[in-house]
Amino acid sequence: MCNLENPSLNFRTDMADERRDIYAKANKIEDEVEGIEVKTEEIDKNIKVSTVKILNENGAKAIGKPIGTYITIDVKNIKIAGDEEIQKASEVLSGQLKPLINSHISNIDDILVVGLGNIYVTPDSLGPKVINEIDVTRHLIKYLPQYIDENTRPVTAVAPGVLGTTGIETLEILKGIVDNIKPKMIIAIDSLASRSIERISSTIQIADTGIVPGAGVENTRKALNEENLGVKVIAVGVPTVVESAVLVNDCLDLFIEKLQDEAKSNEYLNEIKDNDNYEEIKEVLIPKDYNMIVTPKEIDSLIENMKDVVARGINFSL
Amino acid sequence: MCNLENPSLNFRTDMADERRDIYAKANKIEDEVEGIEVKTEEIDKNIKVSTVKILNENGAKAIGKPIGTYITIDVKNIKIAGDEEIQKASEVLSGQLKPLINSHISNIDDILVVGLGNIYVTPDSLGPKVINEIDVTRHLIKYLPQYIDENTRPVTAVAPGVLGTTGIETLEILKGIVDNIKPKMIIAIDSLASRSIERISSTIQIADTGIVPGAGVENTRKALNEENLGVKVIAVGVPTVVESAVLVNDCLDLFIEKLQDEAKSNEYLNEIKDNDNYEEIKEVLIPKDYNMIVTPKEIDSLIENMKDVVARGINFSL
Amino acid sequence: MCNLENPSLNFRTDMADERRDIYAKANKIEDEVEGIEVKTEEIDKNIKVSTVKILNENGAKAIGKPIGTYITIDVKNIKIAGDEEIQKASEVLSGQLKPLINSHISNIDDILVVGLGNIYVTPDSLGPKVINEIDVTRHLIKYLPQYIDENTRPVTAVAPGVLGTTGIETLEILKGIVDNIKPKMIIAIDSLASRSIERISSTIQIADTGIVPGAGVENTRKALNEENLGVKVIAVGVPTVVESAVLVNDCLDLFIEKLQDEAKSNEYLNEIKDNDNYEEIKEVLIPKDYNMIVTPKEIDSLIENMKDVVARGINFSL
Amino acid sequence: MCNLENPSLNFRTDMADERRDIYAKANKIEDEVEGIEVKTEEIDKNIKVSTVKILNENGAKAIGKPIGTYITIDVKNIKIAGDEEIQKASEVLSGQLKPLINSHISNIDDILVVGLGNIYVTPDSLGPKVINEIDVTRHLIKYLPQYIDENTRPVTAVAPGVLGTTGIETLEILKGIVDNIKPKMIIAIDSLASRSIERISSTIQIADTGIVPGAGVENTRKALNEENLGVKVIAVGVPTVVESAVLVNDCLDLFIEKLQDEAKSNEYLNEIKDNDNYEEIKEVLIPKDYNMIVTPKEIDSLIENMKDVVARGINFSL
Repeated sequence: MCNLENPSLNFRTDMADERRDIYAKANKIEDEVEGIEVKTEEIDKNIKVSTVKILNENGAKAIGKPIGTYITIDVKNIKIAGDEEIQKASEVLSGQLKPLINSHISNIDDILVVGLGNIYVTPDSLGPKVINEIDVTRHLIKYLPQYIDENTRPVTAVAPGVLGTTGIETLEILKGIVDNIKPKMIIAIDSLASRSIERISSTIQIADTGIVPGAGVENTRKALNEENLGVKVIAVGVPTVVESAVLVNDCLDLFIEKLQDEAKSNEYLNEIKDNDNYEEIKEVLIPKDYNMIVTPKEIDSLIENMKDVVARGINFSL
Repeated sequence: MCNLENPSLNFRTDMADERRDIYAKANKIEDEVEGIEVKTEEIDKNIKVSTVKILNENGAKAIGKPIGTYITIDVKNIKIAGDEEIQKASEVLSGQLKPLINSHISNIDDILVVGLGNIYVTPDSLGPKVINEIDVTRHLIKYLPQYIDENTRPVTAVAPGVLGTTGIETLEILKGIVDNIKPKMIIAIDSLASRSIERISSTIQIADTGIVPGAGVENTRKALNEENLGVKVIAVGVPTVVESAVLVNDCLDLFIEKLQDEAKSNEYLNEIKDNDNYEEIKEVLIPKDYNMIVTPKEIDSLIENMKDVVARGINFSL
Repeated sequence: MCNLENPSLNFRTDMADERRDIYAKANKIEDEVEGIEVKTEEIDKNIKVSTVKILNENGAKAIGKPIGTYITIDVKNIKIAGDEEIQKASEVLSGQLKPLINSHISNIDDILVVGLGNIYVTPDSLGPKVINEIDVTRHLIKYLPQYIDENTRPVTAVAPGVLGTTGIETLEILKGIVDNIKPKMIIAIDSLASRSIERISSTIQIADTGIVPGAGVENTRKALNEENLGVKVIAVGVPTVVESAVLVNDCLDLFIEKLQDEAKSNEYLNEIKDNDNYEEIKEVLIPKDYNMIVTPKEIDSLIENMKDVVARGINFSL
Repeated sequence: MCNLENPSLNFRTDMADERRDIYAKANKIEDEVEGIEVKTEEIDKNIKVSTVKILNENGAKAIGKPIGTYITIDVKNIKIAGDEEIQKASEVLSGQLKPLINSHISNIDDILVVGLGNIYVTPDSLGPKVINEIDVTRHLIKYLPQYIDENTRPVTAVAPGVLGTTGIETLEILKGIVDNIKPKMIIAIDSLASRSIERISSTIQIADTGIVPGAGVENTRKALNEENLGVKVIAVGVPTVVESAVLVNDCLDLFIEKLQDEAKSNEYLNEIKDNDNYEEIKEVLIPKDYNMIVTPKEIDSLIENMKDVVARGINFSL
């Protein structure tokens, strides 16, 4: 599971679109931020796509994220979706993913799909489950070329496991595989720990700047990106849990809001609400070892649906 | 999954031992409460057992629970337990369960073990998973009597499913089965939604007064107890989740405590801390549909371990 | 899992259509057998439906099955089917099931869907897995009538488990439930042990005459049918395994055929081939405890696909 | 899943001990075969261990297997074993594995445990399931050295998946990982397709000469051994399925035996029985695409038990 937090910045969110808004507001910029391009599209009443392109160092500095393309697909009610909605969502994913892939490599270049996460921990099992559904072709091209079209793109797929189960950094495992099979691109799927309750189980996040797997051993997590692996890494992430501190912080705000409505608040509470107390709350929680995760009740079926959306979306794109 | 809350009382907890303490404190009773017998036992450094017996109507009224026996087994670190600790915990469970069973029925009387909950929702899957491990004997006694000891107790086991999946009240399903196979006792296993974070994944709660399954359709949940089923129901419950409101309330208190330590609190905050804001917080959360559950990260392996503890504990007792 | 064999008859198969053919051949009947109506339909190149109606006692005696309707849907390649084929197959199932249901009850009458089998044994897990996908409505009609159409049919669904795990005859469990919730019809889903290798993983069998669950304790299996339960029982069965003896018998025939082709056979072998040695082979296997099951390699994904076909087919019909 | 067959030799079996017996019989050798050392040990009434050491080229040629140590542990009734028997079996495994490991590397040298097979196909899921239970230490030594003993052996564990799901040869994946993390030894766990029904679910086979994974693309499977990976590979294999042809061949023999007993056999049948018809039977089965696997009915619980035996046995050894 990937943890999006980035404590060195003062953005509470890791989402490029939200950071851009925060930056614009803080700097009282009404129009476009130089070096950042934003686009929003409503596909239908249930699905919305927003794209942030960071074009240069100015844009990168403004919102503290590397130059690249960041796409967020919002899908309402995916946890109770029927087959039609799943199909629709996977087509939207493919509609975003395919051009992004093609902007970096040709359509016969090798792609390695990587499913990050732990198959034995439900909210972290999305990556490995998607891998099982990817239509791999490289072995067929090699051993049964007569049965497949000659322009078929070689696709491979691995689920490298997590540091706590393998004892090996994900980067180390992937480096070895990349060296041996030499793909031109990696697509990495991961469950995300979101900082926003609203976004749980309803967004797919795509970025062509890579991903940092695992929240295990804080200081040593190594990014899966072009710098470390030598090939472009497109990340496909789905928030499946929030941290306890996020839930508490959000609810504290709602609670104070209610007190304000009832005129029971005061200066101190107002101040608490205006600040982001995430770090303080986290600090309070850690010594108590309240190492809990917060998930929707329907997490098992949510993961099944998202697995279908992501696997089909990727298969259509390849 | 069973929800222990009982909003008509002003006890935050459903645990008999904690209610007794609250009552004694509120009424400035130093010694024993009349009609209530309390016993605590340290089995070893990891396991503690406390027993509350409500002996008469006075005791029942004092803490708002029916006459009966309530046992809590605290097991530290069950989520990372090895095989030896699991064995030990199951022996302690059996050590409590066996005399409780024998205080109500003879040792050749029929017992029906019921696994409540939904096998497809990890934190609610304990009951059905235990059922798969119960050593059932009734069919052997009937069809293969030559292979088993003639004093074997007839044991049966069912996992009736949950209202949302079956469309049928658990009580209705069980009533039919009880009428047909006429057991002398039911042992019902369920995952619990606890009001205490501390107790998640570390306690087993036994009561001979039955259980209320499901948190589905609030007003219509029917108790599985002697009154409704005609046979004694022993409940074996394991807290596996807490509600969002519980987490927020507990953390809010910790947060204010920290502000107090730093002399940043004030009268209002102090008051918030002294009161139990659970109901208000819940009210704030509900309109936002923050219908999240809070579980330990290791919930999958916790359930596996607890399944072994409970299944073996019951098998040893029968 | 249901075992179709019926050793008291000299039919090797339990399929109504095959029995009719055997009977016709044995009695040199060229045309129709009196009391039996047969219809075959090709839906598309992958799906074929054949229907046998036994109209009276003469037909029933001829092929040794009760008066009723027997439908077989053949679906090629279901184990590697994509989503479209699964959808198509479920529509064909619904196209057969719906009129059969409506020929017995009105479209607002209560239906109880029963998933037979053991969720912990892959080839026997179809029934319980389908149950999890059935759209149940009875509890909504009872508790949330404002949210649903007033002509909604009350649907309930249970997975009663298997004798070896519950210690209770499936009939006993269901009788209790039927007495309490009084459905007008039962639809029972089960994995079948087929006598034909060809039919594994490619047919769905429907009959409105009920089903005999379990192959456990031979003499005591009780039929789930109108006689025993008081309501019409429609069986939906999918062959997922064959017995060892079936495989051996079929292969022995193929082997002798090859010897015949190579002119290496002899009178004895020819005789072996002409006879059905199933019973003798079974006899040889039993003392060795070669209690093996024969399944397709892809049994796990076959079950997943069949689960979707059957669940959707039933949901469309209700 | 690994296929032990080796059609270029005329041994029906791949087991070193059985080959030695066949060779000795064929060559009328009463005593020891030069270059081969055999030892058999009865641990208790349920567990037997036999060891074959091939000491030189003469021994290797005699039975057609590379120089090395081959150990077979026979465990009766593992599929219905209780916790005590599982513990006992894992201790016996460890008792064999530990000295074998120590004969090749020192007790602080790095070991990589590899779980071969497909987690989504029950009889092939043993390897990946064992991996989840291995006590890995390498990351702790690296990141949390203060918490562990300084002589702890670095242990890592991966489940590389199967060619059909990843599109990558297992050897390619492992080569990359071995190059990066440089273990001194690999322990590879795999489900085996056995040629003997008797051995299903009751033996563990250990060899220090490596393993050939997958039965997928016949001509191109590459051995996981010292030659290809640069480090010693110890294979731990558990037979979980037999091929259809094996079952048919064995049963054909039993069937003819019965005919012989009843004096109904003849010269041809006797000849069939004396020969090994495995290849002919296979040939007959293939064009019919009878691509079935034969497993015990209790395969799911067998895998669970074997997973515990193998995982604990390896953990005790490391």
